[in-house]
Amino acid sequence: MKEITVLAPATVANVVCGFDCLGFALDEPTDRMTLRLIDEKTVKIKHFDDFRLPTEPEKNIAGVALLAILDVIEENIGFEIEITKNIKPGSGIGSSSASAVGAVVVANKLLNDRFSRLELAEFAMKGEQVASEGRHADNVAPCLFGGFTLVRSVEPLDIVCLDYPKLFVTIIHPQIEVKTSEARKILPTEIPLKSAIQAWSNVGALVAALAKGDYGLIARSLEDFIVEPVRKKLIPHFDALKAESLAAGALGGGISGSGPSVFMLSETLETAINVEKAMREIYAQTGIEFNTYVSKINPEGVKILK
Amino acid sequence: MKEITVLAPATVANVVCGFDCLGFALDEPTDRMTLRLIDEKTVKIKHFDDFRLPTEPEKNIAGVALLAILDVIEENIGFEIEITKNIKPGSGIGSSSASAVGAVVVANKLLNDRFSRLELAEFAMKGEQVASEGRHADNVAPCLFGGFTLVRSVEPLDIVCLDYPKLFVTIIHPQIEVKTSEARKILPTEIPLKSAIQAWSNVGALVAALAKGDYGLIARSLEDFIVEPVRKKLIPHFDALKAESLAAGALGGGISGSGPSVFMLSETLETAINVEKAMREIYAQTGIEFNTYVSKINPEGVKILK
Repeated sequence: MKEITVLAPATVANVVCGFDCLGFALDEPTDRMTLRLIDEKTVKIKHFDDFRLPTEPEKNIAGVALLAILDVIEENIGFEIEITKNIKPGSGIGSSSASAVGAVVVANKLLNDRFSRLELAEFAMKGEQVASEGRHADNVAPCLFGGFTLVRSVEPLDIVCLDYPKLFVTIIHPQIEVKTSEARKILPTEIPLKSAIQAWSNVGALVAALAKGDYGLIARSLEDFIVEPVRKKLIPHFDALKAESLAAGALGGGISGSGPSVFMLSETLETAINVEKAMREIYAQTGIEFNTYVSKINPEGVKILK
Repeated sequence: MKEITVLAPATVANVVCGFDCLGFALDEPTDRMTLRLIDEKTVKIKHFDDFRLPTEPEKNIAGVALLAILDVIEENIGFEIEITKNIKPGSGIGSSSASAVGAVVVANKLLNDRFSRLELAEFAMKGEQVASEGRHADNVAPCLFGGFTLVRSVEPLDIVCLDYPKLFVTIIHPQIEVKTSEARKILPTEIPLKSAIQAWSNVGALVAALAKGDYGLIARSLEDFIVEPVRKKLIPHFDALKAESLAAGALGGGISGSGPSVFMLSETLETAINVEKAMREIYAQTGIEFNTYVSKINPEGVKILK
């Protein structure tokens, strides 16, 4: 029986100033998924990890994304999927998007590349909706396309792959729970026009800085006066993480997605490792368990294994 | 007596989605200014146009900008300036910025390039403040640097010169008065977070599209649900201008600055001329006097004449 395996990477959404639109893919960690076609119009899910995710397809992110594909194809076929998640659900580095994108990419491969990447993004977003309310593609886009992405619009879906220079990412994942839906609830529904102008000026400058490889401008553009002040309260020692990372040479960074993970961008691997050290020192004193990762930006996104 | 003459071009600020941050320079129209050093710490102004602008330096935009320079230099010198304005004040294509930028650039030349361009922008912004409340650089920046610019921040001043492809601009200037200060008053002070996200997604996409020369994405990114719906009421037949321009092949466009001028971007000169024709047909039926201009984007901004 033909089977294909993919690695779906973690992703960082928002990227400080680009709430709900910017994102990039990481090399590490990745979820591993193996898919087989079966001749029954259903989705069967096995999890090889300790996260106790539901295996009923309607309640499982990968399951819902695969059901969305089955909905639009005529053949009487289905999927059997084995998932080994290494990206902890609720970590804020795109765990649900990795499940959804990995599943639809491997399904599409078994269906001989029947769908476009934008169609795959639509299927994956249906899966993502199980975890977060509303339509969002800011993690789906970088997981699927790799690199640095901007979601110009979700309705209709319009994804832009950005040019970017060499960058290294340090992530710290404090093992506390921040629910995406709750992190959304505490956001203001209205914001001052003045703050919005600051935000879109920074987004425009960040996109230009990435295209030019202007590290100074990248650093200056990574500021957010709208979401960070509200959400950082959910992340213990956020201000210290940021201050010590900058002191260690990071260009800038902030909350990854809706948290609790915090990311920092650096120009060199050496700096990114120094930033990791600085982050670990802060958290070592807290009693809170945590993981850290250092990674370059992953240019290809989800990867089909031979 | 040494004198130097400059041409200071009209500029388009906001560029639909980039309210208060994006702008670009035009080839036409331009203001002409000639400056001489005098040995008295004062500014003398002569206007060779019909706009009846005040010639007391404290009330004149070029005058205030030049006084700002005199404030920081130690020598007992002053400036005598002759101004021929071709950019009608209140037209929405950066008339006041042209006065301010032209004056400080030519003064700096007479002072042997004593100031940096960012310092010149600061002096020019002081002049601009005579016309519009608050600190703004979205017309000053493109007039001074040329091309397409983004003002990331005004405090501290941070200006980004953007990469952009060949583009042609069509402008229609209806001869009605829209005061910048009043066009500001009708703006909301708070906006929905959802609209702000749309806006910064579009700004990021537009900057990426300009850098890539992706005309389709430029067209899709030129949308604004925040300022245009409120300000277009001040501009007769705005919706018709926009609809007919798009029908004639324009990529997109909208209100130039705070209006009443309306601009459209096109990929070719031929299209820009067709857009001009379409705009003229609409306004010919209205009884409102108007001017139109077709121009490429001016890559150098204010220009010192030999």
